[in-house]
Amino acid sequence: MWVQKQLRLKARKRGFHLITDEIVAQLPELAGVDVGLLSVFIQHSSASLTLNENADPTVRQDFESFFNRTVPENEPYYRHTYEGSDDMPAHLKASLLGASVSIPINKGQLCLGTWQGIYLGEHRDRGGARSLVATIQGRGHAAI
Amino acid sequence: MWVQKQLRLKARKRGFHLITDEIVAQLPELAGVDVGLLSVFIQHSSASLTLNENADPTVRQDFESFFNRTVPENEPYYRHTYEGSDDMPAHLKASLLGASVSIPINKGQLCLGTWQGIYLGEHRDRGGARSLVATIQGRGHAAI
Amino acid sequence: MWVQKQLRLKARKRGFHLITDEIVAQLPELAGVDVGLLSVFIQHSSASLTLNENADPTVRQDFESFFNRTVPENEPYYRHTYEGSDDMPAHLKASLLGASVSIPINKGQLCLGTWQGIYLGEHRDRGGARSLVATIQGRGHAAI
Repeated sequence: MWVQKQLRLKARKRGFHLITDEIVAQLPELAGVDVGLLSVFIQHSSASLTLNENADPTVRQDFESFFNRTVPENEPYYRHTYEGSDDMPAHLKASLLGASVSIPINKGQLCLGTWQGIYLGEHRDRGGARSLVATIQGRGHAAI
Repeated sequence: MWVQKQLRLKARKRGFHLITDEIVAQLPELAGVDVGLLSVFIQHSSASLTLNENADPTVRQDFESFFNRTVPENEPYYRHTYEGSDDMPAHLKASLLGASVSIPINKGQLCLGTWQGIYLGEHRDRGGARSLVATIQGRGHAAI
Repeated sequence: MWVQKQLRLKARKRGFHLITDEIVAQLPELAGVDVGLLSVFIQHSSASLTLNENADPTVRQDFESFFNRTVPENEPYYRHTYEGSDDMPAHLKASLLGASVSIPINKGQLCLGTWQGIYLGEHRDRGGARSLVATIQGRGHAAI
């Protein structure tokens, strides 16, 4: 059983955003999977996907603070600068965090831990809408 | 062919721990896979899984030293602080390193390089037992 | 449908290298996949795979500059030092960036964004040839 869908995320401000519910709502096919994997992939090099704490919004604020300090803007050694001071740091953050998450599916549900959610890392000041590809593979209720 | 299992890791002290053998020992089904992939997923947001050097324990010690320096405790800008000074750094380390590893399987064996092993990154002072989900998918000896 | 191949990358100098075309050229089987996933896995603990900007070579230069500053050589606290000053930083960079990428496949093509490409992170001064394992799984033109 394979399901693959293009998902569109509305433009969000720079920072980290919890998007689990938005993704799951667009994947009703999950309910039919007995055992499988969900891959969510972001088709950009200046935004990222990662899994982290899903309850306290200050975790996401601290993520933004930490990554802004660890990957500063306007480093004198940056050579890729013509798209703005947020551009090269956005590329670096994207690779530090990653472009995809892969989550097990069991009995129609994502096997996320109690405190886990999917974060969008929006690393540009004006990143605009973002495109994801969700791929479900697994064994469903009907025989394959 | 799909196999999915909940694995339980006993509580370990903060730091990086080589867990390849413990995982493989719980997955005798690997032997029946001709070609496939193993996904190992950690259901927590303050611990991580990564692949790295499997031989010299000082690599794991240097990992702990490096990540403690790169993601310090008690940063004045942290807002998520009420679970202790190790908590917010643990969340950040978890996303820098990742919540899952995906490893090819061939002829019943993981296709790890000679020097590769699976690390658990335990980023809390007292993280307790940790839950993993292992998912094997592949083509086995018998026709699917 | 499963395809798994060992790919060999020629020795490259330390730094980040765009290898999308080299990988795709060795996987003509992609053309027969209607919907699926490609996993590319590197069998080493001192080199990495990541996705990032595929057009401007200065992005890759800035990656090398950033990671050399963020993961310095010759830190006095490193204990794993006998293979040279580039060795321990290479292990750390490998885990910060990751050992594999997973990319959706649709209608015979990788679903990469317009600006996304596959980077090899060669973190050793003399890393030599590198081994990858490419695994394609999916639903092909013929019924499975």
